[in-house]
Amino acid sequence: MELEFIRWLRQQLRPDARVPLGPGDDAALLKFSPQHQVVATVDTVIDGVDFLSTQVTPEEVGRKSLAINLSDLAAMGANPIAALLSISFSKGQSLPFAQRLFTGIRTLAEEFNCAIAGGDVSIYDGPLSISITCLGEVPTGKAFLRSGAKPGDALLVTGPLGGSILGHHLHFTPRVNEALWLRENATIHAAMDISDGLTLDASRLAQESACGIVLDLPSIPISEAARTLAAQEELPAKPQPSAISPSLRHALGDGEDFELLLAVPPEEATRLIQLQPFASPLVKIGSFCKEPGLWYMSDSQERFPLEVRGYVHGAQS
Amino acid sequence: MELEFIRWLRQQLRPDARVPLGPGDDAALLKFSPQHQVVATVDTVIDGVDFLSTQVTPEEVGRKSLAINLSDLAAMGANPIAALLSISFSKGQSLPFAQRLFTGIRTLAEEFNCAIAGGDVSIYDGPLSISITCLGEVPTGKAFLRSGAKPGDALLVTGPLGGSILGHHLHFTPRVNEALWLRENATIHAAMDISDGLTLDASRLAQESACGIVLDLPSIPISEAARTLAAQEELPAKPQPSAISPSLRHALGDGEDFELLLAVPPEEATRLIQLQPFASPLVKIGSFCKEPGLWYMSDSQERFPLEVRGYVHGAQS
Repeated sequence: MELEFIRWLRQQLRPDARVPLGPGDDAALLKFSPQHQVVATVDTVIDGVDFLSTQVTPEEVGRKSLAINLSDLAAMGANPIAALLSISFSKGQSLPFAQRLFTGIRTLAEEFNCAIAGGDVSIYDGPLSISITCLGEVPTGKAFLRSGAKPGDALLVTGPLGGSILGHHLHFTPRVNEALWLRENATIHAAMDISDGLTLDASRLAQESACGIVLDLPSIPISEAARTLAAQEELPAKPQPSAISPSLRHALGDGEDFELLLAVPPEEATRLIQLQPFASPLVKIGSFCKEPGLWYMSDSQERFPLEVRGYVHGAQS
Repeated sequence: MELEFIRWLRQQLRPDARVPLGPGDDAALLKFSPQHQVVATVDTVIDGVDFLSTQVTPEEVGRKSLAINLSDLAAMGANPIAALLSISFSKGQSLPFAQRLFTGIRTLAEEFNCAIAGGDVSIYDGPLSISITCLGEVPTGKAFLRSGAKPGDALLVTGPLGGSILGHHLHFTPRVNEALWLRENATIHAAMDISDGLTLDASRLAQESACGIVLDLPSIPISEAARTLAAQEELPAKPQPSAISPSLRHALGDGEDFELLLAVPPEEATRLIQLQPFASPLVKIGSFCKEPGLWYMSDSQERFPLEVRGYVHGAQS
């Protein structure tokens, strides 16, 4: 199966000027633009950990395995250049399964102009595992870091949050185009993507920037999926602060939203929100403050600490 | 375990000018030299497929997982720059195990000046799996490809072959320093590393260069380990050509030698062999010819096709 798959896979790849030498040698040769830094990230998805192969199509698994990496490049403000795939198939998985998986990867790669430069295929006695390394580029000094937010900055988000498990985690569009537009047309102090949940990721952004965040809970955009999940639930046993509705609770902690969190100067926030450059609305959901930690403002304008909830897994970088 | 491991791991990493931003953000930032191409390769090792965790130490597994990637960079004539690690631990593997594994990676990375720029850690219901992406650089146009050999070129090898299973596959030194010396001081038409066995890899080198190779069997350097294995064996049931001794058979097909195969013009071969620039002797083991395929010369100077043997696994690029 492996050799047949690899032969087929190589036929699928198109020539790309950024990959002077693709699969077939000991390594790939890649060409990056002068005066750019290379942005590199690796993310692995495993059946039973990151998805359930009984509940998703091979195309969806392939798509997701690349999409989470493209989302990381977006969070850095980087153009995708190339991906290297390491796929470990379970013994017994068929060639058509492998082809459908790769088709899911390739379709998304083409959508975001990311070349497939090489890879490694194994068959083993374990669950399907796909590890993708994505390489991108950003003009030197222009990368969005987590560490640049300043007290007084506004916190923006690129789309509604929560309930990803109902399908968004498979079908989300990595915010690459939004990030590239922002890199060229806006002042961004800091950015990251929301993979583990708004409260957890916002608290990381605050910590890396050595400040805090006050979330404006009523302004947080809640996805339809979060509302659907909330409507299906019993009320939580543990009493919640009155400001936190069941659907907001999903938006705060579900994770896998893959929207961008952005720290921008307040006047830039006003400009961007008026401009609304994207199909999905840019929303201001809070402000950075001096005091470390994650906070919310009560109706009486008092500041309270906000519980950090989210999916704490093998932290990735 | 994951979070504790990652916290520990980050403390182990040293600042490196080539990695302006290391683990802790959405992706790493890397700096390559101007007028260089980026060389990228990924290789995955899995318990039960590429090693047996019951027979090796965690340090050895870590070392090997990086060494095979550095060998690929060497085969391209590239300087190592940075590695990204994706490690999937079996449920129940301990923090000390993970730390020893990483120590094996880091020790070799430091020996070859390869920064560790980021990674991804998972725990799952499957065998230990380590996928490493190695990035290197080579002055534009100076990479060693498989496709540049010409009829008349000599085929050189950087060290003795065979019997790797007795230990070499864990302790080999990737030929990075040799490759860099050759890149600066020699005329190399083509190169690759021997991972799947001399005959299989030589036939690939010949095919990529659209020519053939005549091996000079008596000159092939046979490792001590190959002789040891041969001495322990019964004679093969299938009669072998008289030119192929049992120990030579190991040298021809065992694989995991991770020596470099080099195609060089004949006069350059003479110069390099006189010069002997490396601790391990450079040996001429054959010549490239016009006729496709792999051949050997009999005592009577007749050319016979040579059986291609080797470890055909999930081809990697």
